[in-house]
Amino acid sequence: MSARGTDIRSVAGGVCAVEGVRAAGICAGLKASGKPDMALVAVDRPVPAAGVQTSNQILAAPVVVTARHLSDGRARAVLCNAGNANVCTGPDGLALAEESARAVAAELGCAAADVLLCSTGVIGVPFAAEPLLAGIPRVAARLGSGGHDAAARAIMTTDTVVKESAVEVTGGAGSCVVGGMAKGSGMIAPAMATMLCVLTTDAPFDGVELRQALATAVARSFDRISVDGCMSTNDAVLLLATGTAAQPPGTEAFTAGLTAVCADLAEQIVRDGEGATRLLRIDVTGARSEDDAVAVGRAVASSALVKTALAGGDPNWGRVLAAIGAGPVRIDPDRIAVTFGGVTVCRSGVAAAFDEADVTAALRGRDVTCSVDLGLGDAHATFLTCDLTQEYVRINAEYTT
Amino acid sequence: MSARGTDIRSVAGGVCAVEGVRAAGICAGLKASGKPDMALVAVDRPVPAAGVQTSNQILAAPVVVTARHLSDGRARAVLCNAGNANVCTGPDGLALAEESARAVAAELGCAAADVLLCSTGVIGVPFAAEPLLAGIPRVAARLGSGGHDAAARAIMTTDTVVKESAVEVTGGAGSCVVGGMAKGSGMIAPAMATMLCVLTTDAPFDGVELRQALATAVARSFDRISVDGCMSTNDAVLLLATGTAAQPPGTEAFTAGLTAVCADLAEQIVRDGEGATRLLRIDVTGARSEDDAVAVGRAVASSALVKTALAGGDPNWGRVLAAIGAGPVRIDPDRIAVTFGGVTVCRSGVAAAFDEADVTAALRGRDVTCSVDLGLGDAHATFLTCDLTQEYVRINAEYTT
Repeated sequence: MSARGTDIRSVAGGVCAVEGVRAAGICAGLKASGKPDMALVAVDRPVPAAGVQTSNQILAAPVVVTARHLSDGRARAVLCNAGNANVCTGPDGLALAEESARAVAAELGCAAADVLLCSTGVIGVPFAAEPLLAGIPRVAARLGSGGHDAAARAIMTTDTVVKESAVEVTGGAGSCVVGGMAKGSGMIAPAMATMLCVLTTDAPFDGVELRQALATAVARSFDRISVDGCMSTNDAVLLLATGTAAQPPGTEAFTAGLTAVCADLAEQIVRDGEGATRLLRIDVTGARSEDDAVAVGRAVASSALVKTALAGGDPNWGRVLAAIGAGPVRIDPDRIAVTFGGVTVCRSGVAAAFDEADVTAALRGRDVTCSVDLGLGDAHATFLTCDLTQEYVRINAEYTT
Repeated sequence: MSARGTDIRSVAGGVCAVEGVRAAGICAGLKASGKPDMALVAVDRPVPAAGVQTSNQILAAPVVVTARHLSDGRARAVLCNAGNANVCTGPDGLALAEESARAVAAELGCAAADVLLCSTGVIGVPFAAEPLLAGIPRVAARLGSGGHDAAARAIMTTDTVVKESAVEVTGGAGSCVVGGMAKGSGMIAPAMATMLCVLTTDAPFDGVELRQALATAVARSFDRISVDGCMSTNDAVLLLATGTAAQPPGTEAFTAGLTAVCADLAEQIVRDGEGATRLLRIDVTGARSEDDAVAVGRAVASSALVKTALAGGDPNWGRVLAAIGAGPVRIDPDRIAVTFGGVTVCRSGVAAAFDEADVTAALRGRDVTCSVDLGLGDAHATFLTCDLTQEYVRINAEYTT
């Protein structure tokens, strides 16, 4: 991975790839299954921090509290829980979120305003205080530089795999590390930061610089994926910057590294989409603007018919055109070309001569690429989605019962 | 059914409920299955006509030809075929559509411009001329006043039931009849005329009056349903008015009757949604405007998570709130109330105390009502959708292969 003179290299360690970051994950008893459900990520003092949160009008209590605690651009820790999203839980839910921040602060010896919160799980179920508050001293006691995997595991819900990423970025005279973990599998929607994601870096930037870099990275990664077009009430991407890198790279290289970690985690989320068997990479070219290219990618990725055809490995490319035509971007139907797995199926808006066996073979792999050339300009973007399978329906028909 | 002094009463006969309307349906060999696939509906001379067609930018050839033929506000017949949507078929597809209109005109002894066309089926597959053109004299020879059922059957694709409706409307001093048939099961989308629908009436209104009445009826029926949020390239609702009613009602009563037929057909489409086992009626009240109420209904009806929960009979009402919060209408989360089957599950945006068994029972019937009170105003609207089941995925994963 590299971008304009920047070298980006994968490293191990997830959120703990950054020196001084400690993490832990435990079973607090919030999930009926008894699986790990509480994670804490912490640094040794309040550091610059930034966040991008859901644009849903229905806001979870932790989203409200985190927005408030981020207003000074500094934080020391992120407490995450799975099993209950703490949303539509009224004043009790808000009070519990605040109390949990105070409890973490007491363990770490900092102000409650330096603690950020993320919750994921069922919406609209009262959140039992006891297991949450009792878990906090236990998770704090386990904090360590090897705890990244346990932390990433403790935020999973319907996720089937742990999602971590970390890179070392070298650019100009210096280098820094960016680490991250994420959860997300369903209720993954386009057009905003989705899911929960905690990022760390040793780059010494302030809150404003971090916010700008994070906004850019999120716009180019999490905002370009969709599992089911459903926006969560709890989405959050949070970034803590320890500032310990002795010779940091410039903001451009840092942003490229941050984008690389976000894009890696975003792809992991789509690949682990509920019930998904295939990843669909929609490469849109020939757009009038990058925003147009993203919007066309989103229109294709949001089509239940495209996604079910993908599940069946069915080269039904007409559904791609129907989805684009129904979308918000003005197109010229006579200029569109579509390929699946490199085989052109539609040229100038009309069926191309192709060997169906070639396309079907391309559609039946784990990774499928659909290229859409709008023939209108030079802008391009890639959008990721997955197939819609019977297993997605089964998972979501049985979620709370 | 009644509206402001208007009496609306169901009658038999589908599109042939109107005197002088003849219809037929045959097997022309366009479907690989050998099932009926060509329908013709005709009157005995050119009459006032109106249509509402898809707003998709990718337009089927029959949509283009029909728009042109409707420009004089008159028509004599509607030729429908299933098995091939004649879209993304280039100049050949357009030429074939025009030729089919000329062939119908030759059989009936009218101008090609008086023939309207509808096609439904696979997108982007070249349309074989021979079976289409050979079928036209055969279907014309079978036209009769008892052919409504055969015609309605011949436009089915993944539909499992024939969809017909007809009413006699009495209002003021007079009365008229409105008849109709429709097809539609998947690729049924909000916010535009969806599917194929042919309507007939003996009301003596001109093209402009018909267009206004049809726009109102479609906005209150087909624009308020969704099976899968996917807009077709071939959607069309076409209305022929013979003008033979001796003592017609006023336009308001006529519009009410037309709306009743459209709403009945729209409900039949949702009930027969691909893979659907339940109909969800979303009653939105307390909205600032009727448009807002429709948009909130559409947001709920478009949520894959709401629809899969419905499939599982799962009272996961938090997904309703998440969908509304992600939607385009500004809400006050603290004012929302939600009921399922009359049981309040959420009041003032917070979980209400309810017996889960009561809600689960309500959710497991064929018909489920979800009421959403936004608490913001006096406007209301109802939106219909169905559940998203594993069967929907199976049907659409295997559509062309």
